[in-house]
Amino acid sequence: MSSRSNSKTIVEIYGQRFSIIGKESTDHIRKVASMVDHKMREINRKSPSLDINKLSILTAVNVTHDYVKLKEAYEKLEKQLIEKD
Amino acid sequence: MSSRSNSKTIVEIYGQRFSIIGKESTDHIRKVASMVDHKMREINRKSPSLDINKLSILTAVNVTHDYVKLKEAYEKLEKQLIEKD
Repeated sequence: MSSRSNSKTIVEIYGQRFSIIGKESTDHIRKVASMVDHKMREINRKSPSLDINKLSILTAVNVTHDYVKLKEAYEKLEKQLIEKD
Repeated sequence: MSSRSNSKTIVEIYGQRFSIIGKESTDHIRKVASMVDHKMREINRKSPSLDINKLSILTAVNVTHDYVKLKEAYEKLEKQLIEKD
């Protein structure tokens, strides 16, 4: 199969429309958009006084925190796998 | 050692100050904030016409995409580890 060409997916995040262009599947883009939307609403519930701008940045902070933690767990697992070889 | 208590760390992301309260170390919080700041500047370079609000949301989308990909890689590694047992 030839490499996947760019496709455009329209998603709605926190009431705003975004047109996302990339090689990823529409399903993947929709999943990611839905996770961001969900996280924004979760943070908004906890801190309803945040303006949209701070809320968006804190959402990015939140997801990056999860990413760093997962990266640490991944590296630990990698080490375990090497030790088993 | 008793469990770590909440601490407050002040960080600057894309020129805005945030006060982050949590159990994580100051180093971890600074690292996460710096990653978000870096990613925002990277997206801004590619799409300078985006307003701060859309830029922040797209940063969250970007990191969430990386998270989902890493999660898939993590699960694959986990399977490999189980198969080796």
